[in-house]
Amino acid sequence: MTTTINVGVIGAGRIGKIHISNIVYYMPEARIKTVADANLTPEIEGWAKGLGIQNVSKNAEDILRDPEISVVLICSSTDTHADYIIKAAQAGKHIFCEKPVDLTIEKVKAALAAVKNAGVRLQIGFNRRFDHNFAHVRELAKSGAVGQIHLVKITSRDPAPPPPAYVKVSGGIFLDMTIHDFDMARFQAGSEVEEVYATGAVLVDPEIGAAGDVDTAVVTLKFANGALGVIDNSRKAAYGYDQRVEVFGSGGALTAENDAPSQVRLSDAQGVHADKPLYFFLERYKDAFVTEMKAFFKAIAEGTETPVTGNDGLMDLAIGLAAKKSLAEHRPVKVSEVL
Amino acid sequence: MTTTINVGVIGAGRIGKIHISNIVYYMPEARIKTVADANLTPEIEGWAKGLGIQNVSKNAEDILRDPEISVVLICSSTDTHADYIIKAAQAGKHIFCEKPVDLTIEKVKAALAAVKNAGVRLQIGFNRRFDHNFAHVRELAKSGAVGQIHLVKITSRDPAPPPPAYVKVSGGIFLDMTIHDFDMARFQAGSEVEEVYATGAVLVDPEIGAAGDVDTAVVTLKFANGALGVIDNSRKAAYGYDQRVEVFGSGGALTAENDAPSQVRLSDAQGVHADKPLYFFLERYKDAFVTEMKAFFKAIAEGTETPVTGNDGLMDLAIGLAAKKSLAEHRPVKVSEVL
Amino acid sequence: MTTTINVGVIGAGRIGKIHISNIVYYMPEARIKTVADANLTPEIEGWAKGLGIQNVSKNAEDILRDPEISVVLICSSTDTHADYIIKAAQAGKHIFCEKPVDLTIEKVKAALAAVKNAGVRLQIGFNRRFDHNFAHVRELAKSGAVGQIHLVKITSRDPAPPPPAYVKVSGGIFLDMTIHDFDMARFQAGSEVEEVYATGAVLVDPEIGAAGDVDTAVVTLKFANGALGVIDNSRKAAYGYDQRVEVFGSGGALTAENDAPSQVRLSDAQGVHADKPLYFFLERYKDAFVTEMKAFFKAIAEGTETPVTGNDGLMDLAIGLAAKKSLAEHRPVKVSEVL
Amino acid sequence: MTTTINVGVIGAGRIGKIHISNIVYYMPEARIKTVADANLTPEIEGWAKGLGIQNVSKNAEDILRDPEISVVLICSSTDTHADYIIKAAQAGKHIFCEKPVDLTIEKVKAALAAVKNAGVRLQIGFNRRFDHNFAHVRELAKSGAVGQIHLVKITSRDPAPPPPAYVKVSGGIFLDMTIHDFDMARFQAGSEVEEVYATGAVLVDPEIGAAGDVDTAVVTLKFANGALGVIDNSRKAAYGYDQRVEVFGSGGALTAENDAPSQVRLSDAQGVHADKPLYFFLERYKDAFVTEMKAFFKAIAEGTETPVTGNDGLMDLAIGLAAKKSLAEHRPVKVSEVL
Repeated sequence: MTTTINVGVIGAGRIGKIHISNIVYYMPEARIKTVADANLTPEIEGWAKGLGIQNVSKNAEDILRDPEISVVLICSSTDTHADYIIKAAQAGKHIFCEKPVDLTIEKVKAALAAVKNAGVRLQIGFNRRFDHNFAHVRELAKSGAVGQIHLVKITSRDPAPPPPAYVKVSGGIFLDMTIHDFDMARFQAGSEVEEVYATGAVLVDPEIGAAGDVDTAVVTLKFANGALGVIDNSRKAAYGYDQRVEVFGSGGALTAENDAPSQVRLSDAQGVHADKPLYFFLERYKDAFVTEMKAFFKAIAEGTETPVTGNDGLMDLAIGLAAKKSLAEHRPVKVSEVL
Repeated sequence: MTTTINVGVIGAGRIGKIHISNIVYYMPEARIKTVADANLTPEIEGWAKGLGIQNVSKNAEDILRDPEISVVLICSSTDTHADYIIKAAQAGKHIFCEKPVDLTIEKVKAALAAVKNAGVRLQIGFNRRFDHNFAHVRELAKSGAVGQIHLVKITSRDPAPPPPAYVKVSGGIFLDMTIHDFDMARFQAGSEVEEVYATGAVLVDPEIGAAGDVDTAVVTLKFANGALGVIDNSRKAAYGYDQRVEVFGSGGALTAENDAPSQVRLSDAQGVHADKPLYFFLERYKDAFVTEMKAFFKAIAEGTETPVTGNDGLMDLAIGLAAKKSLAEHRPVKVSEVL
Repeated sequence: MTTTINVGVIGAGRIGKIHISNIVYYMPEARIKTVADANLTPEIEGWAKGLGIQNVSKNAEDILRDPEISVVLICSSTDTHADYIIKAAQAGKHIFCEKPVDLTIEKVKAALAAVKNAGVRLQIGFNRRFDHNFAHVRELAKSGAVGQIHLVKITSRDPAPPPPAYVKVSGGIFLDMTIHDFDMARFQAGSEVEEVYATGAVLVDPEIGAAGDVDTAVVTLKFANGALGVIDNSRKAAYGYDQRVEVFGSGGALTAENDAPSQVRLSDAQGVHADKPLYFFLERYKDAFVTEMKAFFKAIAEGTETPVTGNDGLMDLAIGLAAKKSLAEHRPVKVSEVL
Repeated sequence: MTTTINVGVIGAGRIGKIHISNIVYYMPEARIKTVADANLTPEIEGWAKGLGIQNVSKNAEDILRDPEISVVLICSSTDTHADYIIKAAQAGKHIFCEKPVDLTIEKVKAALAAVKNAGVRLQIGFNRRFDHNFAHVRELAKSGAVGQIHLVKITSRDPAPPPPAYVKVSGGIFLDMTIHDFDMARFQAGSEVEEVYATGAVLVDPEIGAAGDVDTAVVTLKFANGALGVIDNSRKAAYGYDQRVEVFGSGGALTAENDAPSQVRLSDAQGVHADKPLYFFLERYKDAFVTEMKAFFKAIAEGTETPVTGNDGLMDLAIGLAAKKSLAEHRPVKVSEVL
């Protein structure tokens, strides 16, 4: 790569900071020219300057209007994603946008239309596809290691539930948490989801129930290629973050177990003891955040399709909405019903 | 135990022979007086005599009429189970009957009524409850190791599908294969199943589909205590018999992995290689067949309830029928609908 | 096999009883005609009769003189092994003898000479060669899975030390405990040991030190084929019986881990917990005792060499004596020095 | 930390570059002012400038004479280490020096004396103490998890042998490769080594034998606290870098298994397959190189003793020399003989 890509980042919250640090430390192919955050604080400003970033602003327009900037990262709150995608696309910039694009099909479609019209690239931040374990499962499955895929099984449990206040604005478990698993399911199956059946229960925190959501769920999927899928979720696993995938097919099965801080085992009079899994997504997907961004810049530099497209964002949302509908109406729901 | 229990065995097919050998080799507390098989062959006769068994007959009546025999094992074909239970109960004998009791709710209820009227004991052959792994999971969960149970997950895959001809008479995958998993789910959850949702696909053998059945399935369960359950089945796992259970609760998770022939690992230039799981149920549940029968004789000797009752047989069948209905009608089905 | 082998067993202590039950339960090819024990008790007599054994005697001569008996199992105390081998050989009987044959090279050589002169078969009870894990390692190594063997590593630790009184008569750790590992080392290396270097320490029980022995040891071996070997021993592992083998070669490594009672793992807020290894040799080598005896009867029936010969017993003893000498003289010792 | 530490690095070969990148990327508490390399190439110069390093020189004096530089990293060839330590100490600079300090006891002692006289800090580059697995083993053992330590076992195998030419100048396997394991053994035992017995063989590459060295070795250690130790080495493991540690004590055992690229397992008709270990030290100890350097800067900033002192370098060398002597003289050698 001979030219450095000039990048603007909109939103310097937790996830924005992760991407910013990763680019500064690990991606000489890109340079962050401007960071914009509507709630800019001296703390953010100092942190950005400490990383050697030239411009810090309260105004995303400083990025959108800058002709030197060819790539925009949208890491602001979900309700602003679609608008920024549209504006960035109209400004002719390639876009990396955090998930979800939006909580409504209409706004996602509008954003994708803008991207299409502008002929720019868009990648959605489904980082788990880049996890060393899950990517390796997919790579082996694609190479035929398990033959024709019959079943994709995903276990996805958080170490602790979000505050009930967050649950209300997040769109609920299927749009906030399971949406990652829907994306993983489509990625591993290599096929679209046609039908969803969702069951749920409130077993972790009654306030989540009071907020109209569930905290424990099992979701069954039917894929277009005939395979089945199943996801189980919990908002709270006492032993930490549980992120496992199994792909079963005519030739065998691939399983990805959790990562742990060490490979140490203690054998004593009580038993044999090992570490819990890595605590949460910052630990587990540390490297995946780097790999996802490098893959994005590679696609931009080489002019190829991004590895997670706007259509992925649309389909994952549609499955989430179908799951919500399934739970509410207590019946299997076709994804086409909500699209 | 001071008195030896005199036993008659009806049916000397594959499963009957397993129980007969186990009793002869491992259970001094019991003595097999008579083996009856409607299709008695010289081979069976020779085999039984070789084990020191006194009487071999074509006629189950030789057992039912024998006042010395206090316990009857019913290992004949499924369609004869209910009738033999009724006759044995009327003859005042305690009964061990292979699963399923019958494929219809009515006949099972009639058999249970006969048992109740006679005041005899009945145990159904759900042997997996006695597997060293699954029993240990239940024991730990009961002791509170994972707190309140939120989810029971069962993976159950056979190494090879049965012949399509068998599929037709077996009642289909849910009554033939998954019924074991329904029993396991109830056992692990410590609660009855209230609702079932079943999905299925024909991915292993088109002839199974032609016979009106599926060979791959995912079944979601709702338990009376609020917990969720999920079972995935395949008629063919390339790597052999896959029998795993996971119990997840407020305090953690218990997982039972497969048994393998050895603990040997080979590390070479290609990777690290270990054994496949034990091939099939004869290997995997070898000891469980012994443990189940010893538990039965213990209950008889001590006059206590058997560990797997007639009601278990009834409820497991009901879940199977509800799963069939769910698949056929493409909707969640309450177990009460079929009872 | 058409003829049943008539067997006499000398010694009905712990190990004798294991072999007797195993033969009665699992080996229709053999029949125990007579059990002789110098310290015959009513308990032993009742137990043997309960198993259907015809004759029970205080006098081993009742076995040695019986022309119907073609095979003798010697399970009496170590100091009587060599004499009984000689007498049984002179009586023309095939012999299975528990380890060690004797604690002196001279008596072992005399016993082997008697066996050779009589042209009978002799198998020594090094049961670990028949363990499912270790046998599988050897089988894979022989098939070339790890290329040319460079190193054999053995970990062998007991759950609890023997009483100090036993330590005195047992010949010490190298002749009592490590002798099993010496046999395993030769078995896995497929080569004789030429030189030994032993270090030891008293870390478990000072009384073992007072009895002139060590309770913790590391022994280095040099094999005739150029490979190296290393054994580590402890009389007390807090987590139970630790029996592992590793064979490393030009093409990779084979490792045999411990067996455990179950494959269950508990993940909770403290970590991930699994079972300790099977408690001791009765549990770990339960099946190996059966396999070893079946292999013996097979060799007798087919007239082939036994899988563990008298020469194995001789060489294992010689390595043990060389290890003792090495520890005492604080230098590497050639096995040829003690032969 | 309020003041940034100014650092000069002598030697920009493979290991020098690792430290330089790590400091630039991960250690804001330090700033590399000057890199000096006697064999400075345009490639090194470009690489250093690309990392934003101010000065690049052919002359280590540019570092030693610079009053702004308070810390020197010595990453040049082994034969220059002792001299640079002396010069840097005389210049009043704190020192991080790669292992080994030197191949002779005399020069190491001279270097340590200079450090002591100058009152500066010295850390030796035994990076494995900072490996997440080995550090965790030590932490648990120190906390009493296995009681009193009885045995330290280390397996250390390289994926491929060095060129025979290197073997000649490296001082041989014990000073080049096993020296890391001697350091690990002392670290884990929490005690000094008093006696060494080394065996070796040429099984990997005859040219290594021709160069007067062995490529396969087993080394037994006796610690001052009474514990035993054993290390096995090979210059070539077909499956890659094998780096395991076991600490056994009165209360149990700690084992550290290898790290692997993923936690993915493939179950197919042939068996269950997992990844090989991480390929070599750059992959396995990637994070350990960072942790070691951060620990060094922390000690400097806080004015405390470094975690790996000059005395560690001296003792590790002495054990290596004792091992060489043991192999040559075919007898156990006290470490005090070579000090």
